[in-house]
Amino acid sequence: LASRVSGFGTTVFSEFSALAVKHGAVNLGQGFPDFDGPEEVKEAAWRAIREGTNQYAPSMGARELRVAIAEHAARFYGQQVDPDTMVTVTSGATEALLDAILGLVDPGDEVIVFEPFYDSYVANIAFVGATPRYVPLRPPDAQHPTWWLDWAELEAAFSPRTRLLILNTPHNPTGKVFTREELERLGTLCERHGVKVLSDEVYEHIVFAPARHVRPSTLPVLADRTVTVSSMGKTFSLTGWKIGWIIAPPPLRDAVQRAHQFVTFATAAPFQSATAAALRMPDGYFQELAVRYLARREKLLHGLREAGLPAQAPEGSYFILADISRQGFPDDVAFCRHLVTQGGVAAIPPSVFYSPEHRYLGQGFARFAFCKTDGVLEEGARRLKQGL
Amino acid sequence: LASRVSGFGTTVFSEFSALAVKHGAVNLGQGFPDFDGPEEVKEAAWRAIREGTNQYAPSMGARELRVAIAEHAARFYGQQVDPDTMVTVTSGATEALLDAILGLVDPGDEVIVFEPFYDSYVANIAFVGATPRYVPLRPPDAQHPTWWLDWAELEAAFSPRTRLLILNTPHNPTGKVFTREELERLGTLCERHGVKVLSDEVYEHIVFAPARHVRPSTLPVLADRTVTVSSMGKTFSLTGWKIGWIIAPPPLRDAVQRAHQFVTFATAAPFQSATAAALRMPDGYFQELAVRYLARREKLLHGLREAGLPAQAPEGSYFILADISRQGFPDDVAFCRHLVTQGGVAAIPPSVFYSPEHRYLGQGFARFAFCKTDGVLEEGARRLKQGL
Ligand SMILES: CSCCC(=O)C(=O)O
Ligand SMILES: CSCCC(=O)C(=O)O
Repeated sequence: LASRVSGFGTTVFSEFSALAVKHGAVNLGQGFPDFDGPEEVKEAAWRAIREGTNQYAPSMGARELRVAIAEHAARFYGQQVDPDTMVTVTSGATEALLDAILGLVDPGDEVIVFEPFYDSYVANIAFVGATPRYVPLRPPDAQHPTWWLDWAELEAAFSPRTRLLILNTPHNPTGKVFTREELERLGTLCERHGVKVLSDEVYEHIVFAPARHVRPSTLPVLADRTVTVSSMGKTFSLTGWKIGWIIAPPPLRDAVQRAHQFVTFATAAPFQSATAAALRMPDGYFQELAVRYLARREKLLHGLREAGLPAQAPEGSYFILADISRQGFPDDVAFCRHLVTQGGVAAIPPSVFYSPEHRYLGQGFARFAFCKTDGVLEEGARRLKQGL
Repeated sequence: LASRVSGFGTTVFSEFSALAVKHGAVNLGQGFPDFDGPEEVKEAAWRAIREGTNQYAPSMGARELRVAIAEHAARFYGQQVDPDTMVTVTSGATEALLDAILGLVDPGDEVIVFEPFYDSYVANIAFVGATPRYVPLRPPDAQHPTWWLDWAELEAAFSPRTRLLILNTPHNPTGKVFTREELERLGTLCERHGVKVLSDEVYEHIVFAPARHVRPSTLPVLADRTVTVSSMGKTFSLTGWKIGWIIAPPPLRDAVQRAHQFVTFATAAPFQSATAAALRMPDGYFQELAVRYLARREKLLHGLREAGLPAQAPEGSYFILADISRQGFPDDVAFCRHLVTQGGVAAIPPSVFYSPEHRYLGQGFARFAFCKTDGVLEEGARRLKQGL
């Protein structure tokens, strides 16, 4: 066993999905929809398979998909993307994140990570022998209507060895959507310290008004220093297809591409064609996605409140962090274990998304996913009310 | 740019496939079939997509596929594989190789690599800060009917820091199929030095009698220390689907799985179902595959000889190394560049699969792929004869 993996257990998502199956629980843990993606996208995949798009795609991705990624960036963010020098297609956002870190971060470098973090960020930093520097997002309070950044804390996290800052907006698991002002301020700090930004935007289309997704790389201060990562899984309810991508200025794209060619080389060709078709769907598709998720959000928020679990409405993503601090459990892990084994509902304990030092900050919450059909959300709510 | 990728260019496969397109060359370079995979496997993928197998597969792989991988290992090699503790499904063999190296090799460790090597091995060793130790395979000569190992040279490559030996059988690009005796002798050396083996067997079903594929992990001396990597791309002529896997004893499987969950997390779910169906195809399918490739091998060998490029018949894989030493070019790179730009045929210069120190050993050869339809092989042969 190499020492870089010896500290890793099984991901919390695998662990709680397995517990959910074992205990017949309603799975509001791992974030995958229990409904299917659009018929026309599925049929586009079949067309590609039937017509013989079945050999290696180019390592940087099929041109058809790179063009569609560029058009999507222009349509939604007015971003100018050259499909030939600024895009690499990957096996999901997870691979894209690793490629970026392999391509940009040296052993001994420091990487700024906001807490709570998506678990693969910290694992990938460990893979390359770099050091994470943690900055916790602070929960809403009287002065702050949403999760917020302590700017002094962020400034203090920069050092001469800081190479990269990892951003996630919309943010999993808090649901925070960073504002333009926050991104500009953050970008100015990165510019001052010569730091690159890795921006994970996989929930870009699951955002609730008045919040709006601002793509960090469209801000002048961030444009030259940002690697944008997204994927089709959440936007098209096809998380199992594992098609992701990066968009970056040519020198950063090159660094990522050099890593990518020796991580997976290329990505499933038929799903690249289908993803090109998906990204070209009319505006109405994307609007309706957000509208439907809004209704699901309201349903789950209501169910949680009825069960005595108050929660802030997330601005984006398909997750809700509920307050469990008055449930009488020692921590979130104990609460979630009890809930999945006794209460018939799986949720994710967010303290695993914190460094040991800051773990206590997550222990008063549990994360519930609302990427589920109405019946499942209702059954989950019923069990929560009964079980707590 | 991280220093680990700063030495990397574009892979030779991408480079020569792009040149082939640009110059309208017959592409006998990158190893992908120009014919399609079995209809029933393609339809199995569509069934999975249509019926909604479209969300995250389990990180270790869909159980249906892990069972099929175990059954395939039992059917062809009499190998006992527990699908729950010994298998991880990956995004192609390329990812499987990286997962194994991330899971097993520490910075400063040494890894023994045979030359010529598949390029991602050495890139992956660089990713983890380990050091490759190169042992060249020697070309056939009066004493040796096939490519051979200088055992004294191999023994001298072991050191107290050796952690892993990477094996590839059938071997790309030489076509060598390691014999049971060679594997036993090699296994004994690895056992003596406490070294693990990473065995890349993606051409396992493209082997020509009297050669037979021996799976290294079925030898007692290697069973406990070997991570076996294979994939469905070459066996089912669907290289673009990118479904690979590892088979390993539980402690080694654990190490690889821990890395895998933070490399891609999981692999395209519908293609996992289809691969399960593919691996269950009757024996006749696999026999016919080898028979067809034998005919293609003969056709290309004939064409090469007619063009004045003598070549040894490969025992396995779909590649031929032809002798170009009497063509009057300074080296294989010059030959291959001339051939693709002026001669209308793309081939791969094998010197890129050697360390700088041993590069000269590859400079007298060019690698030609025969995973092509008859018409393409014939047109390639015609152009070679005309152009040389
Ligand atoms: C890759 S499995 C995890 C899915 C997900 O994004 C989440 O549940 O946070
Ligand atoms: C992953 S692209 C290279 C295909 C191949 O295995 C080869 O041509 O050697």
